[in-house]
Amino acid sequence: MTMNGYEDHPRARPSRRTVIAATGAAALVLPGTSAATAASPPHSPGQAPAHAAAQAPVPRDVCRAVARAILVLDRHHRPLVPGYARILLEEGLPRSRRAPKKVLIVGAGPAGMAAAHLLLQAGHQVTVIEANGNRVGGRIKTFRTGGHENAEQPFADPLQYAEAGAMRIPDSHPLVTGLLDSLGLKRRRFHLSDVDSLGNPALRTWILVNGVRARRADYQRDPRAVNRSFGVPAQYETVPASDIVRTALAPARALIDGKSGDALVEGWATVLETYGHWSMYRYLTERARLDDATIDLIGTVQNMTSRLHLGFVHSFLSAALISPDTVFYELPGGTATFADALYDRVRDAVRLDRRAVRVEHGPRGVDVHTVSEGRGGEETVQETFHGDEVILTVPFSGLRHVTFTPALSYGKRRAVTEVHYDSATKVLLEFSRRWWEFDEADWKRELAAVRPGLYDAYRRGRAPADGTLLGAHPSVPDGHISRSQRVHYAAHRATLHEQPEAARVIGGGSTTDNPNRFMFEPSYPVPGSAGGVLLASYSWADDALKWDAFDDEERYPRALGGVQDVYGQRIEVFYTGVGRTQSWMRDPYAYGEASVLLPGQHTELFPDIPAAEGRLHFAGCHTSVKPAWIEGALESAVRTALEVHTG
Amino acid sequence: MTMNGYEDHPRARPSRRTVIAATGAAALVLPGTSAATAASPPHSPGQAPAHAAAQAPVPRDVCRAVARAILVLDRHHRPLVPGYARILLEEGLPRSRRAPKKVLIVGAGPAGMAAAHLLLQAGHQVTVIEANGNRVGGRIKTFRTGGHENAEQPFADPLQYAEAGAMRIPDSHPLVTGLLDSLGLKRRRFHLSDVDSLGNPALRTWILVNGVRARRADYQRDPRAVNRSFGVPAQYETVPASDIVRTALAPARALIDGKSGDALVEGWATVLETYGHWSMYRYLTERARLDDATIDLIGTVQNMTSRLHLGFVHSFLSAALISPDTVFYELPGGTATFADALYDRVRDAVRLDRRAVRVEHGPRGVDVHTVSEGRGGEETVQETFHGDEVILTVPFSGLRHVTFTPALSYGKRRAVTEVHYDSATKVLLEFSRRWWEFDEADWKRELAAVRPGLYDAYRRGRAPADGTLLGAHPSVPDGHISRSQRVHYAAHRATLHEQPEAARVIGGGSTTDNPNRFMFEPSYPVPGSAGGVLLASYSWADDALKWDAFDDEERYPRALGGVQDVYGQRIEVFYTGVGRTQSWMRDPYAYGEASVLLPGQHTELFPDIPAAEGRLHFAGCHTSVKPAWIEGALESAVRTALEVHTG
Repeated sequence: MTMNGYEDHPRARPSRRTVIAATGAAALVLPGTSAATAASPPHSPGQAPAHAAAQAPVPRDVCRAVARAILVLDRHHRPLVPGYARILLEEGLPRSRRAPKKVLIVGAGPAGMAAAHLLLQAGHQVTVIEANGNRVGGRIKTFRTGGHENAEQPFADPLQYAEAGAMRIPDSHPLVTGLLDSLGLKRRRFHLSDVDSLGNPALRTWILVNGVRARRADYQRDPRAVNRSFGVPAQYETVPASDIVRTALAPARALIDGKSGDALVEGWATVLETYGHWSMYRYLTERARLDDATIDLIGTVQNMTSRLHLGFVHSFLSAALISPDTVFYELPGGTATFADALYDRVRDAVRLDRRAVRVEHGPRGVDVHTVSEGRGGEETVQETFHGDEVILTVPFSGLRHVTFTPALSYGKRRAVTEVHYDSATKVLLEFSRRWWEFDEADWKRELAAVRPGLYDAYRRGRAPADGTLLGAHPSVPDGHISRSQRVHYAAHRATLHEQPEAARVIGGGSTTDNPNRFMFEPSYPVPGSAGGVLLASYSWADDALKWDAFDDEERYPRALGGVQDVYGQRIEVFYTGVGRTQSWMRDPYAYGEASVLLPGQHTELFPDIPAAEGRLHFAGCHTSVKPAWIEGALESAVRTALEVHTG
Repeated sequence: MTMNGYEDHPRARPSRRTVIAATGAAALVLPGTSAATAASPPHSPGQAPAHAAAQAPVPRDVCRAVARAILVLDRHHRPLVPGYARILLEEGLPRSRRAPKKVLIVGAGPAGMAAAHLLLQAGHQVTVIEANGNRVGGRIKTFRTGGHENAEQPFADPLQYAEAGAMRIPDSHPLVTGLLDSLGLKRRRFHLSDVDSLGNPALRTWILVNGVRARRADYQRDPRAVNRSFGVPAQYETVPASDIVRTALAPARALIDGKSGDALVEGWATVLETYGHWSMYRYLTERARLDDATIDLIGTVQNMTSRLHLGFVHSFLSAALISPDTVFYELPGGTATFADALYDRVRDAVRLDRRAVRVEHGPRGVDVHTVSEGRGGEETVQETFHGDEVILTVPFSGLRHVTFTPALSYGKRRAVTEVHYDSATKVLLEFSRRWWEFDEADWKRELAAVRPGLYDAYRRGRAPADGTLLGAHPSVPDGHISRSQRVHYAAHRATLHEQPEAARVIGGGSTTDNPNRFMFEPSYPVPGSAGGVLLASYSWADDALKWDAFDDEERYPRALGGVQDVYGQRIEVFYTGVGRTQSWMRDPYAYGEASVLLPGQHTELFPDIPAAEGRLHFAGCHTSVKPAWIEGALESAVRTALEVHTG
């Protein structure tokens, strides 16, 4: 160990970077461009150089390595998931004659708890160090009463709950679905699109943009009014936004579609080589050749605007790995019941309220120095844990503030510093009735219960919008709507006074260009409760950060106003006055929703992310190519458990 | 006014966007590329398409319009600033026979207060509506005792103050320097680079990256050790990072350097046409053809990493409009003394504690609905202001949550939704002595005053790092270092135990790749105080958001640790335990440091930003091409005051 703790300068151990740098001028010629173009001198002033410039290419073997990570293949292009599934769901880690190890795991999210279980089963001594004082699960988090975290009642109705984090599980993710099954956890369909009372696709939720309103089904049939409101060129007026996106992504999809085996690896390698350094904005303008108006349209309706400047590959992966007809599941009682079950298996090994702040590692093992939360006036406690090896599941955004002695490798340090984490904020509102399921007869009956004539007053846009009708329905319990909320409501006030027809939907959600952006209705009632919690706003990137600035007392009436724009003012009578907000960027241990890589980071940084360094192993969804998905976390759990067990 | 409040669909009033969209396929051919290239069909799967794709060009007149905004020229290419200066500093608004107007101004930052003064002088009736309950100035904010805001003592020493926001004023900004002079405010040199006790350049602050340490002057003379630590190719080993940046920007600079008049407008238009849709990352890789390692180097040392994915034009403008030998000024007593002076002139017109949340506008004038802060348990109050016209100086990040009836134009709505605001966070630490000015003799003397042998213990890396020596010097007042801070300090602890030689600097600051990133020492002592406040960390974008997650009790010991990495552990004896943090992203009315436009936004969105809409006028630094600079705010103040006065 050197004096200053830095062992690994890139000059000392030639890295991929220096390989690239050393490749020389000839390598600057991209396949497909002529040497003459690439070698052209800087253009003369006054002339537009246009696209004469060439990008130093990423070596093909780097692209292939990332392609293998995308497909979860080993070096010989053999699929890793079947073996992972066998270990995770059936056999556990392979038998070993080596002595058991003392293993530290930092973070009790799904990656940490799954790895802990495997290592415990295999006879290792495991300690899981968790920063939160009262819960495990990481970005699996349900606002609920009770649970392993013994949470205080979050909504007016003690039966109600809602997801702060992971809320849907695709059936194309075998590790997580398999683990749910093997834990005996029931799952049911999550309705990403709204259904009718028989469970059939309804597509009756709204698109409301530029003041133009359309049911989703109507939009699919005739998108002209919505599309024209963005001023798209004639060729796109009659094409639904989802189709425009599909066509736009076709050139990149063509590189992988219908391929398998080595050809699929090469296809993904070409995607990375070609577009790995592109933003989605660049792809849409330069490859798909879309105009600004059409980008505004698909950005608004298909949720691309806030991530246009982030990596093309990230959004393309989401589109490519999860098909439009993917079936999603949810867990009755909330996703946190999965955290409960994972926790039950490893509870004795978990130390809550210990956040890693410094890691010392060397020939004698690993010391992880921790502090307690010390929130709410408690004294801060310091504690050090010792192990033979450590699995770090902390997001790299958080790892940036963890000190390593000696320092991490150059490549890992750059990744920890530069990997971009995106913000995401959910604003949840509780209602005493699931008004989104109502038909007009329901509305008539329920509004009459508030006061005679109210139904018509809302229909004619004549109901007072001064906040007096907030929670006016007899079903709303007293005491949750503060005067301050009513004042904010009255000042902000929904601007659209038209009353659209009743939604009559279950699940799914609406899309708007107002600050709420995306809304989701629950897919199921909570047994015993006539009410429901609406995900009133789900937003990302810059859109999310703007919601974070408000106090709760102002945020909830504002979020309500945004919902009223879409569903009409009358929903206010069922508002209980209780909301919950999850800003993942403001979460003190998450520092963001998930890693969303910037242009170039998949090939420049990703290869360094999962690589073990001596006694240090790196897990968590960010070490997979499925950030934000539990599946990626579980892949990393098996990988790192194997590293520790067989290493 | 339509039912739903939306008057302006882009189809109804053909916008620039529809012009672009309607230009047809021929327009897709960029100047400088052959029609054959631009018209080439999508590449076959498996072949890298490289740079065959073309970007739909931005119409030249749009580029020219933005170029004029950059150069602050009118439509006939005549400079606007001399006329602005005459109005702002000498003559006031031109005489007019029109009847005085009732003018509302939203936001009492420099733009709002300067516009208010001009309009008041011209006889208009003005009300400035300010969200903050206790201060004006916007992103001019000084942590100080007293002032117009009657602030509570922010540091242990009541004489100490430090800048939360604007801290330096370039002499190339005539409106702000002129206004300071005309207000009789003294200014003095702000030392962006450190100087010696005679005020001569010292360049003795540190660069500490990858565990390699160099004084700035030494780095300029021989950058090899630092540059090699990033693994840069041989050609860059001996080139200082600032020179690499200069060379990298040369192709873009060549388009404007040495030009004036129409040629300069055309030069900037070409910059926008060529690179307006590029990120800095793309420019550095594709135009400057830098490798990843060299980008890491300049990104770290020259502060480009966190903004690589943002617009090239933004960073290029900063580099182009402020030359390396620009002289900067600061105000004795803090930049807030400027806010004091602006406030003095308009105080009677300002209504504090009123935040605009809704704007109704029509033939009868403008109604601005406001709410009070209601923080600290006070009841929220709602109040509506009426005027003939309104000047909105609110950042567009904040305007996103202001409701307009009828809705703003399509172009303005897109700009309000999409304009990117960057985060920036300052962490300030107070010390009882200005140790950065010390030589070794000073250190010997002062550490001996703590306890014998301590000087040598620090030099040999043997002083305990358990937090017991925090604030150990007799000059540190009791009572500010909590037990919790000591625990966090001990757990986190500076990792570098070497003690570099004494800094002996005034002003300037050091650069590191640890989370602190950039540090700045004050340029002057505070009269009557032996202590000083260090800007211990100044960071942007993702780097800044990571600091925001901590509680103060943890943030300050961590920030101290980062400073100790650079200056040595011994500085801790002077730490008073008092810090201040300004996260502009978390500021409830700023929502970010400033607008930092994304690739494409200068040409796609900027033209719509300052444009007036009926009775609505838009001011603030974001409506200029100098975001974050007071000069841009003042330009917009004169422009909008003229719009109101002569409109």
